[in-house]
Amino acid sequence: MHAAMNETALTARQIAERIGGRVEGDPSVRIEGIAPLDTAGPTDLTFAADEKRAARLAACKAGAAIVGAAPASAPMTLIRVDDVQLAVVKYLEILAGPEDVPPRGVDRTAVIASDAEIAADVAIGPFVVIGPGAKVGSGSVLCAGVRIGAAVEIGRHAVCHEGVVIKRACTIGDRVRIGPNSVIGHDGFGYHLVDGVHRKVPHVGIVVIEDDVEIGACSCVDRAKFGETRIGAGTKIDNLVQIAHNVQTGRGCVFAGQAGIAGSARLGDYVVLGGHAGVRDNVALGDGVQVAAFGAVAGDVPDGEAVGGIPARRAPEQKRVVLSVAKLPELFKRVKELEAKVRALESAKDNS
Amino acid sequence: MHAAMNETALTARQIAERIGGRVEGDPSVRIEGIAPLDTAGPTDLTFAADEKRAARLAACKAGAAIVGAAPASAPMTLIRVDDVQLAVVKYLEILAGPEDVPPRGVDRTAVIASDAEIAADVAIGPFVVIGPGAKVGSGSVLCAGVRIGAAVEIGRHAVCHEGVVIKRACTIGDRVRIGPNSVIGHDGFGYHLVDGVHRKVPHVGIVVIEDDVEIGACSCVDRAKFGETRIGAGTKIDNLVQIAHNVQTGRGCVFAGQAGIAGSARLGDYVVLGGHAGVRDNVALGDGVQVAAFGAVAGDVPDGEAVGGIPARRAPEQKRVVLSVAKLPELFKRVKELEAKVRALESAKDNS
Amino acid sequence: MHAAMNETALTARQIAERIGGRVEGDPSVRIEGIAPLDTAGPTDLTFAADEKRAARLAACKAGAAIVGAAPASAPMTLIRVDDVQLAVVKYLEILAGPEDVPPRGVDRTAVIASDAEIAADVAIGPFVVIGPGAKVGSGSVLCAGVRIGAAVEIGRHAVCHEGVVIKRACTIGDRVRIGPNSVIGHDGFGYHLVDGVHRKVPHVGIVVIEDDVEIGACSCVDRAKFGETRIGAGTKIDNLVQIAHNVQTGRGCVFAGQAGIAGSARLGDYVVLGGHAGVRDNVALGDGVQVAAFGAVAGDVPDGEAVGGIPARRAPEQKRVVLSVAKLPELFKRVKELEAKVRALESAKDNS
Repeated sequence: MHAAMNETALTARQIAERIGGRVEGDPSVRIEGIAPLDTAGPTDLTFAADEKRAARLAACKAGAAIVGAAPASAPMTLIRVDDVQLAVVKYLEILAGPEDVPPRGVDRTAVIASDAEIAADVAIGPFVVIGPGAKVGSGSVLCAGVRIGAAVEIGRHAVCHEGVVIKRACTIGDRVRIGPNSVIGHDGFGYHLVDGVHRKVPHVGIVVIEDDVEIGACSCVDRAKFGETRIGAGTKIDNLVQIAHNVQTGRGCVFAGQAGIAGSARLGDYVVLGGHAGVRDNVALGDGVQVAAFGAVAGDVPDGEAVGGIPARRAPEQKRVVLSVAKLPELFKRVKELEAKVRALESAKDNS
Repeated sequence: MHAAMNETALTARQIAERIGGRVEGDPSVRIEGIAPLDTAGPTDLTFAADEKRAARLAACKAGAAIVGAAPASAPMTLIRVDDVQLAVVKYLEILAGPEDVPPRGVDRTAVIASDAEIAADVAIGPFVVIGPGAKVGSGSVLCAGVRIGAAVEIGRHAVCHEGVVIKRACTIGDRVRIGPNSVIGHDGFGYHLVDGVHRKVPHVGIVVIEDDVEIGACSCVDRAKFGETRIGAGTKIDNLVQIAHNVQTGRGCVFAGQAGIAGSARLGDYVVLGGHAGVRDNVALGDGVQVAAFGAVAGDVPDGEAVGGIPARRAPEQKRVVLSVAKLPELFKRVKELEAKVRALESAKDNS
Repeated sequence: MHAAMNETALTARQIAERIGGRVEGDPSVRIEGIAPLDTAGPTDLTFAADEKRAARLAACKAGAAIVGAAPASAPMTLIRVDDVQLAVVKYLEILAGPEDVPPRGVDRTAVIASDAEIAADVAIGPFVVIGPGAKVGSGSVLCAGVRIGAAVEIGRHAVCHEGVVIKRACTIGDRVRIGPNSVIGHDGFGYHLVDGVHRKVPHVGIVVIEDDVEIGACSCVDRAKFGETRIGAGTKIDNLVQIAHNVQTGRGCVFAGQAGIAGSARLGDYVVLGGHAGVRDNVALGDGVQVAAFGAVAGDVPDGEAVGGIPARRAPEQKRVVLSVAKLPELFKRVKELEAKVRALESAKDNS
């Protein structure tokens, strides 16, 4: 069974050439798609990234397999590579074909301010709205229903998927990708309570999304109170993620689904947040910090540290805490027994 | 006070006939809406699903009440049924009237690819976009601003509410309902780190939403890396829920608001996730598994088990842990006292 | 370095007049924007809300600073006020300039039902859809792509940002602001399981958003099963927040990002929910209750109480629990030592 969206029949030799591998076995086997070890059939490519999976190739029906050092042999054609995952990514790039985005040109239904600067080779879909003074760079794509605010600047080869909203004066870098219905640059959440009334704090700052950032669907990045909310180059953000006003992230961060970062938190490079994780406002996380899923970071974390738990602690400590908590009902019993024994000892002493 | 959106005056007899109940008392009382025990007035229907609530009918001003076995009598007309909740649902179905969706036909502003196959009796609202090769089945409804990607297939009598985005080649079953601004089939969250750069993993798979699934507002179901992300028939998904690439769910599952399921997790039939609950990637949950609100499932769970906590444990164990944790400060005191007593005993022994 | 979105050059004297402060030092210094203590330059205003920050003014390069009682003096012009935060808000209001919304009038692309009642001085952007019988009050703004359902009533000077969806018969008060892609009035999440099938509970109630409420981006407020879901006047709701059917909130509540409130919960006035916090269905929270970030409220909470944790406990108790949990691995050691000592004592006693 093959399961690729976009089938592209290639021989094992052609695939090996394009993903950078060496063929062992029949190079002419015809491959149409990719499938996991347990469901792959004769026209499928499969892959085994470690020895445990490589051992399963013996019983696999795939026409060819991408492998690393192991196994020595297998019943199908092998494409041997140094980095199996990278080779799989390269094969998926072959399968992927063109994106599901509007064709080059500007749809006749788009509403574009007369002074917006739109590069010649963009793709702008139906019902897109572009505000006064906005700029859209060469090769960028705005899918149906995207709304670009006044004075927004979008770089080159960026893609805004359907329903994305970018508010005034925000800056989007080159090759940035923003998923459907995400919102960039809405007001931060700030109020000042005066006589029982929450007075709105105007947010006059902007959002800067640096080059090569990718943001998923239904995620939000709020504009700064003043200055900038900044997402560092190459950072990847999943769906339903909340990034509050004035947050600063470094390069290459990874934020999983439903993570949230509160106002003015500062994150270093390559920080990873697991799903549902949270970072308190004004906290600083160093380079390479990793926060486990459901971790709630309430204080600064130095470079390279892994943390988890609510509130988040260093990972080895949190592991001990979790193990201890699980044995807690047992500990109560042990203390109760100790209390009885101590009473007995005390009573024996008193009677001696 | 009645509070129905869509008032429909009926006598108690007419209601009893339509919801399948027996009238006790005046069958001619005129009912216009439904209200809870404490606010219902003479033209309202109310209901009492258990004995405790039935006892409150004596002081209730409702014109009529849906009841089960209890009470024996009450001051208003009673409509006696076997399943009170089901009877209430049936009465709400009477009140509900037509949906707030576009009329049958295709709005003149919709942009539909010339080769899309649209059944004759659909309802397509303003500013809908339908891509090349897409199919929309008989009786289906696309509300204003829905964006259907290339080669998407939508079954019969499905409803996509305003702003829904469905990306390329995904399949939507019969009678599926998708809430406003939800996103189906955006790329999964996958990157391969090479030399400090997160290289995007192309997602060439699709999403399959089986028949009778309902999805709320602002929820996301990501497309598979390859193969399918699949939501089993009759599954119900609330608002702001995240379902990652390659997740497989069984039939009749229920996922409450802000729950999240990470990549390639496999869920059986009738799995229930509470609000804010999470499931780790690649984990398998058996049929009928129930995860409490805020539960974080980090490992496989067998059929029928209820779990909760972070990380999730079996419910009875988690209950003991929560109780133990609450008494933990007290335990510290008890241990401190024990230490003092043991020191005293040791000291007594040394001095004896 | 100044960082304001919308520069407005004013002298310190002009600023002091408009924000209600007294100038100390050169009143003619020209200010163009606002910046924090560490980055402010000669044309920036900065501010110091407490003594600790006031002490940092000595080394700050700002042209002027908003201060309270402290410091006695500083190297730049001072604007002395009673409430520093409020003065900053007032200055941000000066900087903010006009909003990024459509101009007054109705865009030619909007689709408006013939019997909708639209006040003369509204601003309705491109691709807005307004259903039959809807009303939009004086001075209100509907940004691009907003979808207003049948019989919805919107008050005066309300703003619905891009992509907002409001479903049938919901009521939106005066000066309400709803952020991009939020959804008001979609069906609540309710099903009745009959013979293995989840039968949909029709939601015939509505949502009432009272005056001066603000809602962020991608948040959801579900319509009532019957009756109303009601958001009290002046309540502020952040991004990605879920409010379920029949929830009732008081006045002036504040719900941070990714918080969730389950069905029929009742909240008093000025309730605060931290980020990722949750409230169980049917629970009642008194006036002024504060729930910490990631807190999961599972039972009623009386007026004025602060709670936190999963499940949520009173804040002082939760603080003790968190401290105790952190010391739990150490407690296990202490108990183990006690057990050894008690065994030794018992053994000594047996041998005596």
